Amino acid sequence: MTDRRLFTRKLDIARGAVDMTHGSGGKAMAQLVRELFAAAFANPWLDQGNDQAAFDVPGGRMVMTTDGFVVSPLFFPGGDIGSLAVHGTVNDVAMAGAVPLHLTAGFIIEEGFPLADLKRVVDSMAAAAREAGVAIVSGDTKVVERGKGDGIFITTTGIGMVPPGVAPSGDRARPGDAILVSGTMGDHGVAIMSTRDNLGFETAILSDSAALNGLVAAMVAAVPDVHVLRDPTRGGLATTLNEIAHQSGVGMRLRESDIPVRAQVTAACELLGLDPLYAANEGKLIAICAEEECDRLLSVMRDHPLGRDAACIGRVVEDPHRFVQMETRFGGRRIVDWLTGEQLPRIC
Amino acid sequence: MTDRRLFTRKLDIARGAVDMTHGSGGKAMAQLVRELFAAAFANPWLDQGNDQAAFDVPGGRMVMTTDGFVVSPLFFPGGDIGSLAVHGTVNDVAMAGAVPLHLTAGFIIEEGFPLADLKRVVDSMAAAAREAGVAIVSGDTKVVERGKGDGIFITTTGIGMVPPGVAPSGDRARPGDAILVSGTMGDHGVAIMSTRDNLGFETAILSDSAALNGLVAAMVAAVPDVHVLRDPTRGGLATTLNEIAHQSGVGMRLRESDIPVRAQVTAACELLGLDPLYAANEGKLIAICAEEECDRLLSVMRDHPLGRDAACIGRVVEDPHRFVQMETRFGGRRIVDWLTGEQLPRIC
Repeated sequence: MTDRRLFTRKLDIARGAVDMTHGSGGKAMAQLVRELFAAAFANPWLDQGNDQAAFDVPGGRMVMTTDGFVVSPLFFPGGDIGSLAVHGTVNDVAMAGAVPLHLTAGFIIEEGFPLADLKRVVDSMAAAAREAGVAIVSGDTKVVERGKGDGIFITTTGIGMVPPGVAPSGDRARPGDAILVSGTMGDHGVAIMSTRDNLGFETAILSDSAALNGLVAAMVAAVPDVHVLRDPTRGGLATTLNEIAHQSGVGMRLRESDIPVRAQVTAACELLGLDPLYAANEGKLIAICAEEECDRLLSVMRDHPLGRDAACIGRVVEDPHRFVQMETRFGGRRIVDWLTGEQLPRIC
Repeated sequence: MTDRRLFTRKLDIARGAVDMTHGSGGKAMAQLVRELFAAAFANPWLDQGNDQAAFDVPGGRMVMTTDGFVVSPLFFPGGDIGSLAVHGTVNDVAMAGAVPLHLTAGFIIEEGFPLADLKRVVDSMAAAAREAGVAIVSGDTKVVERGKGDGIFITTTGIGMVPPGVAPSGDRARPGDAILVSGTMGDHGVAIMSTRDNLGFETAILSDSAALNGLVAAMVAAVPDVHVLRDPTRGGLATTLNEIAHQSGVGMRLRESDIPVRAQVTAACELLGLDPLYAANEGKLIAICAEEECDRLLSVMRDHPLGRDAACIGRVVEDPHRFVQMETRFGGRRIVDWLTGEQLPRIC
């Protein structure tokens, strides 16, 4: 079934070009992935449509995922491209309910990049990997001429093993399910924004960048049948929920007043005309589970340092239109659409 | 033990910068990897020092490897960045004697890149993956602003399963072993060179870019105890043999007259003052095995379409200096050193 809201006009492959919206995590990216990459590479694992592929190997079920990191600036409040590259990939492994095993790292470095910055990035990756309990087992280094890159890009790939009986997937949200988030929304996006020269904006907000595998391990131990786990990175909570609604063929009803957002993030977003629901997160997850497991899951999440501010923010509903709707603080209701265009380029 | 030839002067991390030699596959890259990456990430799998990490999982032994591709131009005689990205990673998996299972692909695309070129690259990747019998199971797309990238960079990661009893590794070359190559040396390097505008050079040489997993499967079926398998990519045959000599703590004696090189490649290299032994290959492998298995291995290789020109090119010898030496066509002997500096940037 085609979602007409998503694909009203096909990509113009003969005359079109890639633009910044194709990397934003929103509607344009979903279209590029669907019409170009997924069409060419079609296979049962990619067609799962998750941020990681799950497959059986002798001895168990494994997941594999990859992520490129082009964040600008390289060093930001609360992290840097190195720690982010580890956290992002560990998290995509963990969102399958899996225990991360090993990572690889591919570096594309621009000629002239200071070795001191490279060391800082690499040391930060190493520390993040140690903390998450994973090893960077293989790597690759390429160098491009000055002006053909931007300091450093890192692509990390991760594998992990899924415990028996655990199988969260973006297509498993069912009407009646509870929708939870593990903490405040938008911290990473606003932290990055605060560093951009042209915005001339300062804030005390740190990126939430963190490895969520410990939190997930506690969650699946308590509720092995959690239906969906996903981290709302590029495109934020709003876009990620729309992806899940699309995959599962359901609608969602959120309660704005229940969505945790730091006061400083709200203030910064208001100043900039942005919406925290579309701002990126790098240390938060969305969990969707059966209504009767909600309290137990929430309690386990709140017991973990990375889930202290966890909240139940709404319900999955039947909806052939697959709309994500929100009861606003003022008692109204609005549709929370996919990110269209770009809110902020190179956020991760 | 430190090889003094390699690390005579430490990296100046406080004041130094990355230059093109750090991506060349030669001595400078080996130093950067050793002093910066390997030092920070140190773990038993990375310390294997191979192009892939091998580790046990429930049910068997697995390998994982990653490679970034920044080749310029994107389309070249005999291939393109898409097919190369599949072949390169499939080959790094295969060089562990493993059967490739799945790949992931991370794309970093420059704003303005034509969708038609993107489709050509993606279709080429898909065809190469089908031909090699692997699936691209997960991916990621990032877009960077115009002038912050160079068309498209691709990072592919692969995993595979190693058959029981098979364990080739760069540290297993033993004095007396035979050194074999699967075909002619330098084709990829010269094919890329032929397209570079500033060289204004034309030749009929095609890149040898190809997936070697089928050839390797036949080889390990016949000789499961092959000691070393490695593909001589960046830095070419000379640099790769030096890496192996260094890892295994041995020397090597090559016979120049036995090393297969196409006449056009020799001619092109002479014209450009280059050495085919340092030119990159993307569809060739080096195999090192016990002397008594050499004939059998050579025969199996020659029976495979990608090993028709296979040859035994020399022997492993005891040598505390770990020198790779070559008897020249003219009866002399010379040391074949690591690539120093860069022969050709962005060859893969």
